[in-house]
Amino acid sequence: MIVSRFEERSEEKVTKYGTTGTTIRWLINKDNGARTFAMRRIVIQPKGRIPLHTHPEDHEIYVLSGEGAVLKEEGEIPFQQDMFIYVPPNERHGFQNTGTEPLVILCMIPLLG
Amino acid sequence: MIVSRFEERSEEKVTKYGTTGTTIRWLINKDNGARTFAMRRIVIQPKGRIPLHTHPEDHEIYVLSGEGAVLKEEGEIPFQQDMFIYVPPNERHGFQNTGTEPLVILCMIPLLG
Repeated sequence: MIVSRFEERSEEKVTKYGTTGTTIRWLINKDNGARTFAMRRIVIQPKGRIPLHTHPEDHEIYVLSGEGAVLKEEGEIPFQQDMFIYVPPNERHGFQNTGTEPLVILCMIPLLG
Repeated sequence: MIVSRFEERSEEKVTKYGTTGTTIRWLINKDNGARTFAMRRIVIQPKGRIPLHTHPEDHEIYVLSGEGAVLKEEGEIPFQQDMFIYVPPNERHGFQNTGTEPLVILCMIPLLG
């Protein structure tokens, strides 16, 4: 069993897809026990953005704090603390901080293959 | 894609395992898109308790607010907001609110079979 604080995991800058102002911590991953899915804590600074992209993994997200928008082909959907988001496999999506505080989300992703 | 508030999901009382003072909302589940794992938001009231139990599913948990303890065969491990917990498959575990505010956790579980 693991009982730990998020600060115990290293914080990495995200640059994939042209992402800006964003860091990630992999809290629970294959390396420390996860079998079928991983838990990541992602922080997007004000004006930071994960541009539109797609991948076969779906996302289950819970918004821990802040305000943002899901980017979609056809527009944006705003969200804030205590909302949850489901992004199906292969659906184009991105995220943007639309507020003045850091946007913090918990993002779970299946460990495929 | 789903972008929603947790209040949109119905809140059910948990009674399994002799649980007291506890409710659950299934935020993302098989019925609304989840493929490999589900997201549940669980609230344990002060003095509420999910007694020791075991099952083949592992848990990935993030503590949204409050203070509690993981119950184990050999004792308890305290936790609070912004901590994460990994419970391996078939490991006996329970949860208790040890504070004066509701304990709110996000608990992900694989959809086996």
